[in-house]
Amino acid sequence: MYWLNTIYKGGQLGRMMIEAASRLNLQVTILDAPIDSPAKQIESTQPHIQGAFNDATKIRELASQVDVLTVEIEHVDAAVLAAIETEGKVRVCPSAFTVKTIQDKYNQKKHLESFGIPVAEYVEIANAEELKEAGKRFGYPLMLKSKTMAYDGKGNYVVKNEGEVEKAVEALSKTPLYAEKWALFVKELAVMVVRRANGEILSYPVVETIHKNSICHLVIAPAQIDGAVATKAQKVAENAIKTFPGAGIFGVEMFVMANGEILLNEIAPRPHNSGHYTIEACETSQYENHMRAILDMPLGSTAMKVPASIMVNILGSNSDMTECYKPCQEALLVDGATIHLYGKKECRAGRKMGHITLVGESMMQVQKNLKPILEAMEPGVERALTLRPLVGMIMGSDSDLPVMKVGAQILKDFGIPFELSIVSAHRTPARMVDYAESAAERGLMAIIAGAGGAAHLPGMVAAMTPLPVIGVPVKGSHLDGVDSLYSIVQMPVSLHLFF
Amino acid sequence: MYWLNTIYKGGQLGRMMIEAASRLNLQVTILDAPIDSPAKQIESTQPHIQGAFNDATKIRELASQVDVLTVEIEHVDAAVLAAIETEGKVRVCPSAFTVKTIQDKYNQKKHLESFGIPVAEYVEIANAEELKEAGKRFGYPLMLKSKTMAYDGKGNYVVKNEGEVEKAVEALSKTPLYAEKWALFVKELAVMVVRRANGEILSYPVVETIHKNSICHLVIAPAQIDGAVATKAQKVAENAIKTFPGAGIFGVEMFVMANGEILLNEIAPRPHNSGHYTIEACETSQYENHMRAILDMPLGSTAMKVPASIMVNILGSNSDMTECYKPCQEALLVDGATIHLYGKKECRAGRKMGHITLVGESMMQVQKNLKPILEAMEPGVERALTLRPLVGMIMGSDSDLPVMKVGAQILKDFGIPFELSIVSAHRTPARMVDYAESAAERGLMAIIAGAGGAAHLPGMVAAMTPLPVIGVPVKGSHLDGVDSLYSIVQMPVSLHLFF
Repeated sequence: MYWLNTIYKGGQLGRMMIEAASRLNLQVTILDAPIDSPAKQIESTQPHIQGAFNDATKIRELASQVDVLTVEIEHVDAAVLAAIETEGKVRVCPSAFTVKTIQDKYNQKKHLESFGIPVAEYVEIANAEELKEAGKRFGYPLMLKSKTMAYDGKGNYVVKNEGEVEKAVEALSKTPLYAEKWALFVKELAVMVVRRANGEILSYPVVETIHKNSICHLVIAPAQIDGAVATKAQKVAENAIKTFPGAGIFGVEMFVMANGEILLNEIAPRPHNSGHYTIEACETSQYENHMRAILDMPLGSTAMKVPASIMVNILGSNSDMTECYKPCQEALLVDGATIHLYGKKECRAGRKMGHITLVGESMMQVQKNLKPILEAMEPGVERALTLRPLVGMIMGSDSDLPVMKVGAQILKDFGIPFELSIVSAHRTPARMVDYAESAAERGLMAIIAGAGGAAHLPGMVAAMTPLPVIGVPVKGSHLDGVDSLYSIVQMPVSLHLFF
Repeated sequence: MYWLNTIYKGGQLGRMMIEAASRLNLQVTILDAPIDSPAKQIESTQPHIQGAFNDATKIRELASQVDVLTVEIEHVDAAVLAAIETEGKVRVCPSAFTVKTIQDKYNQKKHLESFGIPVAEYVEIANAEELKEAGKRFGYPLMLKSKTMAYDGKGNYVVKNEGEVEKAVEALSKTPLYAEKWALFVKELAVMVVRRANGEILSYPVVETIHKNSICHLVIAPAQIDGAVATKAQKVAENAIKTFPGAGIFGVEMFVMANGEILLNEIAPRPHNSGHYTIEACETSQYENHMRAILDMPLGSTAMKVPASIMVNILGSNSDMTECYKPCQEALLVDGATIHLYGKKECRAGRKMGHITLVGESMMQVQKNLKPILEAMEPGVERALTLRPLVGMIMGSDSDLPVMKVGAQILKDFGIPFELSIVSAHRTPARMVDYAESAAERGLMAIIAGAGGAAHLPGMVAAMTPLPVIGVPVKGSHLDGVDSLYSIVQMPVSLHLFF
């Protein structure tokens, strides 16, 4: 097919790239210090280049042997990449410009802002005095951040009040700094975006990420959010990636604010933890699409092939690996769970040792299956997701409630998330139009509409949504409900009846 | 987690076992002649044992280093396995008895027959004279088969008439022989069955296999057959595997005869081509479940996580590998297709070089996506699957047809496979009970029932099936259809109306 060779720090991202590459008969050469790195463990055909992944000489040695260079970490020597790129013999993915722009978070923000991508307010900080100024402008708490070499919460400092300013600047004194206005977000979202060498862009579904101690803990796919917010987030992510030349996959992390506003937090120019779920849950994994993108092959479908998925990271709690096996032992008992252990030789507190991906027919089911796994990780900690409603139950008036609440109870019994509200065709027609037109986009799968008398609600809603609408004729004080029945069964679309 | 080492011929089955093993932090040692075999290419942590996979000394060398021995081919030295098993230091999976019984197809048949598993009639053949006798007993054509070292059609000879007897015996003279009555099957089915060391058994869905030149060409999952036949096939496969001690995964190949009878054809005591689809389409792959089984870990769910899947093998057509890349290039353009190339260095006619698995929301969709891939393999050859009906459309009388055929046309337009028949609640109540009770098992997903007058059909059918039933009130000569409408909307379960 194609022959590829590539540069890595051979960690877990490299390992999963190798999995995807070997299925396509692609050959991969790894540059990393250990000969038994997670990636190298599953690659025995190519000579290993032993050395630090950011050692310029070693990168050049690798480049002399390969057709395409790629990375699993952005903290590499961008100047060497730029030089190799200029020589034109080897394709560098992501481009040296992209790596250079992204590895400095302050530059990254400036770049995104210049293209109109929404980011939290920020300002460069040279000393404690400037941080105090920032505190006056942004208020407290605020985030003090290292511009470079920051990941998994390292290089971030939450400054709670002016009294902490000196300590914060001191703590991060080894790197250049900037301050960021505190983003009082309601959720964190992420989108994997893949960009082919020819500029074509595809994005994966919007997922929700839940962090613990600034390290990704859970990824929920798809995100249980309003569909309009998801659409906006996906757009922001795609627009952001359009600003970077070159090919590859990118992880885009975002905040959703209480008002639905999206702020881009940061971008990783490589496969990303928030995209691990794609291996089991999507038609093409992020790893395979990265390979396809950098080789200018057609991109694969990014659609989910299962209705719901949750990924949970397995972090080391100390040097004892057996702690990491506890959630795995639970996962072996659970339908739809796939364990990924990375073969790392040493276990350390906070180190990513593996992950587990669950898939299922509904988020409800996946969440239930996740419980014993989380319980094995952190006994006693209950974590219930707020599920996106799948069914919208509406009625013309609260006098219909006695009839409708029977249906609501059935949904509750089956554990199907739903919303319930009053929407009237005759008293609140504009609200009804809004409700019907946004229902599918907001993620509803069906609407149950109850109405008495002329009973226009189900039919009017059905006329304005592609979703199935179940009409419930409610008996009025006259005509014994036959009026509602006739009104509902004669609507232009198929309707459903409960008695 | 667990530490495993294992024996293989390191081909594609070994390769996919290694993929599954490495995700579980299992360590695998490979015994095979080439150092760059498909399996070894993705395993670099363990020393390679170079030698023939059926070399007794080498097997003993491997056994001295490992905890569990397993195979990817049954044509190994069963006596050595038995000796190792007896020593009791290393677990052998599948057991030496199983390997020995299965590697001789005649013994395999005798074994299965003794446990009441249905197989085609067969008889041992020592010479041409005995084959003529068999011809008299079974008729022609009949199958002459090598007892041992037979796979992918090798070692099989179709004897068309008595005149071919001498030639057939001569052609297969290198191995002991038996003859088998020709199985005039309508379909070939396969089921992967996994047996844990503790005796627990789980089976994967029944798939249909389509062979070309005696080599597996397509695997269709789930098989597009009557649910009752599928249930029977699954039962036969499970019962067959229950007769073998020890742990591991087994591929069970079967014939379905015109009368729905199932005959077991043969068993492979290892992962099997007909189970490749499980990697993308099931909650746990056959490879991972094999690992779990032989390590006595809990078995993973064998359920499909997508509605439909088809696997197509990529066979070499000559020494030119580029021929194999043609279907892959098409697969890159198709949603839900995953390419698996095995990294084999030499391409030969008929050699398995890779496979492509497609998944999708319906068999219709998968079949459509498969088309360009097959066209790239064998231009001009059209292959249309007969799809299992998803919708049952019934009506009380053919006088309802003018109303019902409108719905039938809609199903046709959307490409949804359906069946249409006359079933009357009052005239053929027993047939109606049969129809309703078997509907779900036969694979229907919904029933559309039309009736006029008292219109009992939809309600009665709905009372006897878990499937959703869409009732269509047909207007009679009196009462303008209100009688049917009232009858249908007041049935005990929810019903749907078309107008």
